[in-house]
Amino acid sequence: PDHQSSVPTKVQELFVYEINERDRGSPAFLKLSKKEVNSLGDLVPFTNKLYTGDLQKRLGITAGLCVLIQHLPEKKGDRYEAIYSFYFGDYGHISVQGPYLTYQDTFLAITGGSGIFEGARGVVKLQQIVFPFKLFYTFYLKGIKDLPSELIVQPVTPTPSVEPTAAAKATQPNATIRNFTN
Amino acid sequence: PDHQSSVPTKVQELFVYEINERDRGSPAFLKLSKKEVNSLGDLVPFTNKLYTGDLQKRLGITAGLCVLIQHLPEKKGDRYEAIYSFYFGDYGHISVQGPYLTYQDTFLAITGGSGIFEGARGVVKLQQIVFPFKLFYTFYLKGIKDLPSELIVQPVTPTPSVEPTAAAKATQPNATIRNFTN
Amino acid sequence: PDHQSSVPTKVQELFVYEINERDRGSPAFLKLSKKEVNSLGDLVPFTNKLYTGDLQKRLGITAGLCVLIQHLPEKKGDRYEAIYSFYFGDYGHISVQGPYLTYQDTFLAITGGSGIFEGARGVVKLQQIVFPFKLFYTFYLKGIKDLPSELIVQPVTPTPSVEPTAAAKATQPNATIRNFTN
Repeated sequence: PDHQSSVPTKVQELFVYEINERDRGSPAFLKLSKKEVNSLGDLVPFTNKLYTGDLQKRLGITAGLCVLIQHLPEKKGDRYEAIYSFYFGDYGHISVQGPYLTYQDTFLAITGGSGIFEGARGVVKLQQIVFPFKLFYTFYLKGIKDLPSELIVQPVTPTPSVEPTAAAKATQPNATIRNFTN
Repeated sequence: PDHQSSVPTKVQELFVYEINERDRGSPAFLKLSKKEVNSLGDLVPFTNKLYTGDLQKRLGITAGLCVLIQHLPEKKGDRYEAIYSFYFGDYGHISVQGPYLTYQDTFLAITGGSGIFEGARGVVKLQQIVFPFKLFYTFYLKGIKDLPSELIVQPVTPTPSVEPTAAAKATQPNATIRNFTN
Repeated sequence: PDHQSSVPTKVQELFVYEINERDRGSPAFLKLSKKEVNSLGDLVPFTNKLYTGDLQKRLGITAGLCVLIQHLPEKKGDRYEAIYSFYFGDYGHISVQGPYLTYQDTFLAITGGSGIFEGARGVVKLQQIVFPFKLFYTFYLKGIKDLPSELIVQPVTPTPSVEPTAAAKATQPNATIRNFTN
């Protein structure tokens, strides 16, 4: 844990991609509402892979729970309440809480973190690229020390065709962060 | 996101009513414990309507999950662990985590927020008015800029008979905040 | 709520034991994945007892939800995403969010708190002593006032054989904090 006493307040941006490569058995769509259409009562635990914003390195995973709140036929989509964490190997994790709409970008609250993200505050912007398989996030982080240079990258512009490099997908040693979460 | 670097520390009070008007299919009481009496294992996703403390304007909704922790026969009630967010249209959201007791007021932790509530800290007092349909909340907010005047209202004293104005219930344009969450 | 405006930034350590004495019907292992092996989709609401780090006093309970993320056969264990709170009677509560691995110590994020823990930030180290019945936690707390002396104790070194004192287990008046959570 961080024993220093000052609280940095500048904003640092961190870009990451979350990708469902369909090899983690995720999501687990629990239709507990027992209704045909998505409804309050349905729960969706999930875990996907996490890559740097330039798609050059595997970072780790996401892990958490989406609570289905309402189906919006006019939007052809759903509102979820999302509670999850982003795992960055030896660097630690960031936890978030807030809205996930399948039809629109949203901002979630950063509720805290560990490792280099200890004491993190701020928001994260969630952008859906290919529902529900590719998402792009911009963290606006406050309350932490300077991010390591490895995490400060020029992001690939989010488009439906973006893919991590073959090396990152294969988690080759030069294409992962240290002890990436898996 | 907020790019300023100072962290305001004064306390601001925000009063809201949460009302279940029985038109959102909420709550979804998932009796996963499979026991007759409320028990650990039961989960309760929910979403209700949110009004200003003076009941003049519709703000948005609540959305989240209550985890049943224990039934207390001597209190004729239940302890829940609650994880949810309050949505305020274009103003953003506040996320909370903590105790919900059906028989007693509680304080939950504010874990963060977005929009004008980005970086919010503090606690919220939950007061049950008519179980489980009317609740009154007092947020004690730190870490955010001055609240907009529209949200600073003289609250109606919580009593079982309080109701939002007809205009607010009907979400008439002058009786909602901008792009109120629905 | 705390109406003072300064934000203390020093780190305070708080040691607690979480013990499952098998008398609270916890955990409720909901095998919603419907798979034989633990899998994404399984949910585990839980509530255990909480004691001071010196095992002399009953503090309260834990309460929350573990979301099973993945089974790791090579580790003979599981990764959970955990969202829960620690209850300390009249002193209030601390909420956390983050990783719980059944085979390894982890750090979770402190997301907030109430009472003397209002505005708490930082991390908590989770150490498994006897899976899944005894856990030892070290909170690294920032953003709160000085802890009461009753909570600042010399912890008993975590070993499989540690037990709360008979007085603490029996919640005798001199072996609990005030209005300990039960």
